[in-house]
Amino acid sequence: MFEYAIEAREGHARAGTFQTPHGEIRTPVFAPVGTQATVKTLTPVQVEELGATLVLANTYHLYLRPGDEIVRDLGGLHEFMQWPHPMLTDSGGFQVFSLSRMRKVDEQGVTFKSHIDGSTHQLTPEKSIAIQENLGADTIMTFDECADPHDRVYLEKAVERTHKWAERCLSSKNRKDQALFGIVQGGVFPELRTTSAEFISSLPFQGVAIGGLSVGETKADTLAMVALVNEILPEEKPRYLMGVGTPEDLIEEVRRGVDIFDCVLPTRLARHHSVFAPEGRLNLMNSIYMRDERPIDTTCDCYSCSHFSRAYLRHLITAKELLAGTLLSIHNLRALVRLMNEIRGYIIGGVFEERVPSLLARWSNNAKRIVNPS
Amino acid sequence: MFEYAIEAREGHARAGTFQTPHGEIRTPVFAPVGTQATVKTLTPVQVEELGATLVLANTYHLYLRPGDEIVRDLGGLHEFMQWPHPMLTDSGGFQVFSLSRMRKVDEQGVTFKSHIDGSTHQLTPEKSIAIQENLGADTIMTFDECADPHDRVYLEKAVERTHKWAERCLSSKNRKDQALFGIVQGGVFPELRTTSAEFISSLPFQGVAIGGLSVGETKADTLAMVALVNEILPEEKPRYLMGVGTPEDLIEEVRRGVDIFDCVLPTRLARHHSVFAPEGRLNLMNSIYMRDERPIDTTCDCYSCSHFSRAYLRHLITAKELLAGTLLSIHNLRALVRLMNEIRGYIIGGVFEERVPSLLARWSNNAKRIVNPS
Repeated sequence: MFEYAIEAREGHARAGTFQTPHGEIRTPVFAPVGTQATVKTLTPVQVEELGATLVLANTYHLYLRPGDEIVRDLGGLHEFMQWPHPMLTDSGGFQVFSLSRMRKVDEQGVTFKSHIDGSTHQLTPEKSIAIQENLGADTIMTFDECADPHDRVYLEKAVERTHKWAERCLSSKNRKDQALFGIVQGGVFPELRTTSAEFISSLPFQGVAIGGLSVGETKADTLAMVALVNEILPEEKPRYLMGVGTPEDLIEEVRRGVDIFDCVLPTRLARHHSVFAPEGRLNLMNSIYMRDERPIDTTCDCYSCSHFSRAYLRHLITAKELLAGTLLSIHNLRALVRLMNEIRGYIIGGVFEERVPSLLARWSNNAKRIVNPS
Repeated sequence: MFEYAIEAREGHARAGTFQTPHGEIRTPVFAPVGTQATVKTLTPVQVEELGATLVLANTYHLYLRPGDEIVRDLGGLHEFMQWPHPMLTDSGGFQVFSLSRMRKVDEQGVTFKSHIDGSTHQLTPEKSIAIQENLGADTIMTFDECADPHDRVYLEKAVERTHKWAERCLSSKNRKDQALFGIVQGGVFPELRTTSAEFISSLPFQGVAIGGLSVGETKADTLAMVALVNEILPEEKPRYLMGVGTPEDLIEEVRRGVDIFDCVLPTRLARHHSVFAPEGRLNLMNSIYMRDERPIDTTCDCYSCSHFSRAYLRHLITAKELLAGTLLSIHNLRALVRLMNEIRGYIIGGVFEERVPSLLARWSNNAKRIVNPS
């Protein structure tokens, strides 16, 4: 179990297969985010049909609501949300620092107030592992401190704490059917990232996550830190870049050796009426689509593109019909799943680097919003 | 085309098959409502999978947004919303009287202000037919006046107007691939209903709708009017009771000779967290379902009941996840589709009347809300 077999390498890029109790994950892979035990607006069957193999859920959210013990008593996350394929939970670390109120960090853990009802809670490495064991995902994360990526003085302490917490997570873990990933921190500082990558690499994790990026630093810094860390991480373990990213990011980070990604971008864009399209990111609320008979993307094989016109999708949006969110989410997620499948094929064929310029050219349009020409 | 073959009769109840250009409708049938060219929160595939054969859309809404000419130019309603099975549109009459502002009725038609943007519009019999021809449903309705069911003086004029409008609708109809149904009006007054049923029966419609009921009159009045009208209507044409109703209503009205029903109830209840269940109508937001491992209804074969626990559905509701609306809508619609299939089987088997008491006993619980015992 949890064997990671690398089938092909090209430069730093890898194509592999990660075995989990709920099936194998072919990498590189993009995981849709199911924050509250649901990929927003989609049934599990729709998520399966769009080709997703791995779904992420958030420990912080599920601990607060409905409670990890309820999820456990109902058979664990897979049974609860009826997702029979691989799952991953984060440790709650990131959300404690980004969502909660009045948090206090000490060596023991983090005390914080719930963003839902203001109630006080403490998350510690041991508590995070206990929660994630109750939730029961295939892959779980160590509890880490996600600090300001530019505050070097603070980060030195935070990285040290994250390392101690990583060891405590390893010690407190009981279940054998879950892979535990350590998390590398260190902000934008090469020395800290090096120290952290070396320390986390030295521990017996089944995989390694790179955390604390895509939180406000420059894209150049993100790319440099990922490249640096991946030079140090063991080749034989899967690497997960948390919370990344745009299509361009995915291409660039696979080049730098990342295997697993997750991001709310596709579903969040969908709820704001935006879709990935060949001509760039489109906002389908725009009146120019009022009579547009074309699908979002004529090259896309998703349910939305093989059935509905932009005009119909725009109608749903202007009429405030919730089906719009569903159909746009299906397309945006399918677009990233297809991109990853395409990249995987290129790596196996040994032509990924050769195709990078055309991939970037195609997807760079999707970094920007199309200005309304009407 | 539009042949209505009655396969079995039991008392006034009928089981039949209505042929349309997009397939046959087995009656009695319950049609989900797709007001704005979407059954709220569901993809057409989900609507198909729950066993619906006929979907209704609203002329008033689609005329105002996105506009019937846009729907026509995009291939008509079936193509626009990707529903390949039979469809029905109402005439806009009911919504003009229930939703619009500042309406003025004269012999020509109704002038009103849009509930969306306050713009002024006029609907006439000719205009309603032209819009419905642009929309392209299989079955369309005459433009009628839906007045206060207890205002006898006003109703006499309204019924007369509705009859003149019915003749104008017949005269202005061009398409041969749409069935036109006349609408019987007359409030709660037997004489007016009789006059209207006789007049509408005398015209060459392919079916007859009973309008102006379930708008505030007593249930006894509704039942009496439907029974009276159906004694007069021609046996060989399908009968459609507009906007009805609860499961109990469906059972009682099939007994009185109705073939076709539509109602927003199942999807509206779903959006308010309520579901049809064996023990009565449940509000799944209730904390008693927090750990309830059972599906909504252990006897139901819908996607929701065959996959999800009440505890998970309650979690989605409390977490404000839109998937709740989807899963509850699937169940509520499937419950009524199954009820109609069951009734149809009983009529064909000649045991419907015998089963009515147990059907009513089972479904009477669903008329009331279950009081929170916790």
